[in-house]
Amino acid sequence: MKRKLGPTERIYPMPCPLVVGGTAEEYGALAVAWVGVATATPPSLAMALRRTRHTLELIRRTSTFTVNIPATALATQVDFCGITSGKGRDKIAEAGLTTAPSSLVEAPIIVECAYNLECRVTHEIELGEYVLVIGEVIESHAEESVLDESGTKIDVGALDPLIYIAGSREYRSLGPVVGPAFSMGKALRPDVED
Amino acid sequence: MKRKLGPTERIYPMPCPLVVGGTAEEYGALAVAWVGVATATPPSLAMALRRTRHTLELIRRTSTFTVNIPATALATQVDFCGITSGKGRDKIAEAGLTTAPSSLVEAPIIVECAYNLECRVTHEIELGEYVLVIGEVIESHAEESVLDESGTKIDVGALDPLIYIAGSREYRSLGPVVGPAFSMGKALRPDVED
Repeated sequence: MKRKLGPTERIYPMPCPLVVGGTAEEYGALAVAWVGVATATPPSLAMALRRTRHTLELIRRTSTFTVNIPATALATQVDFCGITSGKGRDKIAEAGLTTAPSSLVEAPIIVECAYNLECRVTHEIELGEYVLVIGEVIESHAEESVLDESGTKIDVGALDPLIYIAGSREYRSLGPVVGPAFSMGKALRPDVED
Repeated sequence: MKRKLGPTERIYPMPCPLVVGGTAEEYGALAVAWVGVATATPPSLAMALRRTRHTLELIRRTSTFTVNIPATALATQVDFCGITSGKGRDKIAEAGLTTAPSSLVEAPIIVECAYNLECRVTHEIELGEYVLVIGEVIESHAEESVLDESGTKIDVGALDPLIYIAGSREYRSLGPVVGPAFSMGKALRPDVED
């Protein structure tokens, strides 16, 4: 029996990166669950920011931003950045986090986040009270401790990314492996040999 | 020590809904990890689809689609829909899944997915080989078995949503609660009383 819940933007699950805008001297960070992939050609992300966000203003100054994936151990710091306005204060420092220069963009990265993506804004689309910012990812880096044995791919178990759950408003961690993608489904395809 | 990984669209984690386009008579479904929130005014999702996707063609016929959140128990079926082209075949039926009419849009929902969002396309943005489809969510519904005691919100533990991990190409389940959002961070704000 299905029950109607009305219009909603809630999907499950959502990531919960810290997005940083600005420069080495003046920067701001925000926890952004509303982010996803926009295209692979070139690799780009789409994120929805409320028009009034201070971080959006900072992003616009340099047309760059960074997306920093926090581990669950940083949940308190991420939440602090989500519930605190950065106007006139350095909330990254207040949260006990530190910034470092990006390699290709003006916006700095957050050192304590093990995986970082450097983005250059390519589009802004106004959608109601939000702006959908499309950013091309021009560089990414990760701590060696969260890479797999190939040294080129993220070991998501080691990354232990923070997950945001809308509605119940809780953070979760990632659970066990269910199975291999682009492979499990072959069991339903008699035409494909494994 | 950070290691450079180059341009990439990989973020962690990603959802893995089945997106359905078309009509009651002719429909198609696709596993889409590249989906996120576009705006809350009105509630809308943004998803990236390769231009050549058959499901995109079906979505364009009615300018509607549904987003169906599968449980981890449906991983094999979802993966099958991800690795199989729907051109000239009913892969939803082949996967052992069934469709039912939506309440407000032409595209049907997938019955076995406990949480469904009905969307109307409001924008299409061409980004390289992909189209970023923005869809307003005009209705949603869920099985009572995945609602919390209020009967109005998703119990994400009961929903047990399938998660997609890029790079290592694996499906994962959701892990334990880390803490309450919009609350944990108050520990770092001496100005806010809990």
